[in-house]
Amino acid sequence: MNSIKVAYQGEIGAYSEIAAARIGTPVHFPSFAQVFKAIVEGLVDCGALPIENSLGGAIYENYDLIFKHPVEIVAETFVCVEHCLMGLPGASLETANQVLSHPQALAQCSKFLNEYPKIAIVPTYDTAGSAKMIKQSGEKDKLAIASENAAKFYGLEIIRRHIATHQDNFTRFLIVAKKGIDKKLLGIKLSEDKTSIVFALQHETGSLFHALSVFALRKINLTKIESRPSGERPFEYLFYVDYLRPETKIERRALDHLAEISTLIETLGQYGCIGERAY
Amino acid sequence: MNSIKVAYQGEIGAYSEIAAARIGTPVHFPSFAQVFKAIVEGLVDCGALPIENSLGGAIYENYDLIFKHPVEIVAETFVCVEHCLMGLPGASLETANQVLSHPQALAQCSKFLNEYPKIAIVPTYDTAGSAKMIKQSGEKDKLAIASENAAKFYGLEIIRRHIATHQDNFTRFLIVAKKGIDKKLLGIKLSEDKTSIVFALQHETGSLFHALSVFALRKINLTKIESRPSGERPFEYLFYVDYLRPETKIERRALDHLAEISTLIETLGQYGCIGERAY
Repeated sequence: MNSIKVAYQGEIGAYSEIAAARIGTPVHFPSFAQVFKAIVEGLVDCGALPIENSLGGAIYENYDLIFKHPVEIVAETFVCVEHCLMGLPGASLETANQVLSHPQALAQCSKFLNEYPKIAIVPTYDTAGSAKMIKQSGEKDKLAIASENAAKFYGLEIIRRHIATHQDNFTRFLIVAKKGIDKKLLGIKLSEDKTSIVFALQHETGSLFHALSVFALRKINLTKIESRPSGERPFEYLFYVDYLRPETKIERRALDHLAEISTLIETLGQYGCIGERAY
Repeated sequence: MNSIKVAYQGEIGAYSEIAAARIGTPVHFPSFAQVFKAIVEGLVDCGALPIENSLGGAIYENYDLIFKHPVEIVAETFVCVEHCLMGLPGASLETANQVLSHPQALAQCSKFLNEYPKIAIVPTYDTAGSAKMIKQSGEKDKLAIASENAAKFYGLEIIRRHIATHQDNFTRFLIVAKKGIDKKLLGIKLSEDKTSIVFALQHETGSLFHALSVFALRKINLTKIESRPSGERPFEYLFYVDYLRPETKIERRALDHLAEISTLIETLGQYGCIGERAY
């Protein structure tokens, strides 16, 4: 680990810590808002924020926080989520009464958990936080579902691996830093082949079709689209779109074209991927 | 409340309970998966499931669960999320050390919480669950952020109302029942003006544009679109789309047209709204 400080939300051993460690030294904060505060105030060099999970879905909150703060996306990275069942030394599936984890992790392991109907399912705020709670309680009849890193950090033993129903479980993280930062200072030397933008449209029949024509006409490849009410004005929708960048002149024209028909348009970052893209 | 049993996920006093009570008698379950199991096994008549929040975003998990179970959407309803700060009788902002709530609720009240930097923010698995924890602990120095219903049920006093940064905070719930159910048995007599579908596309440049042309050419009004990797086959994307229904013949043609270009297409329900649509 180098001297670059990377903020993440969650406990030590969280999946976010794995993403943060790909850039520098992870520093944990209790909330996403505090991660952004730390970036803007210069307490850290950047942050690693989960933005979507291949099974669980999007985390809009982080798109919004990127949009609202003077920051930009400088890279993305995909972390494979490998849920492990863990407990204190001596704990076992046979003697357990409770299994603790984040509701999403519990749902992702539901097929496995259904085989043990006598073990009560206890939702908690965090996967790694569940491991921490078991360590602190000293109770052998409680198990947690969390990452291998969490087991190591809290001194728990892994009882079973690969307990998720679907093995193909990836979380996409965005690495975010102060707007205008020189990416080389973060050790990032990636080809910037993806752009994330946000734009708003009046809710009229065909307005999205019209907006997407801007990309389709120029054969620009969209990799993600999300819509939701803007929350600012009734019947205005916000769209978060990612696309693989065409040559600069074409991209510029597409964004100018989109600006003509949008009530708002903002580029959130142009960036590459650390490691392989999972999707 | 009538004799129709409506399953929801969460503790008593959860926002989901408000949605469930609009149909019948709420019955709570610890997880979304258990809500679906109860519907399919006939333990309840239907379920009320949060699908998106105007600030927080989508809950894909529930779309997936609808897709995977022999159920259909029979109605939607919007619940205004009004976060209240609460504590045991005698608790106050001046003497509090901790405030407990679900991470999303904490984030939505961050502006208010920032005014009290001495109060530690403690994320939990649930808003109503936080109220329950305070009731059980008997500790006056802990506060919770939850609904007014949660305060009433757990005997907590409301210290402050309207603490969310944005007041325009609505959660959209889907009412789900066994496939083919006679909606009148649930007391639902709404005009079925919305359809939810899911379809899959191979990830090729312009494939989404092509799919949306099916709707745009027929002037069909989309109200929601979500994309994500299908998780089944690499580079295949799933799209969840809602639209306001045109006349039946036109809708049939649009879906037939979409089926020609999709690798999968399924209708999740045709339904109306209980109360007003918030967005």
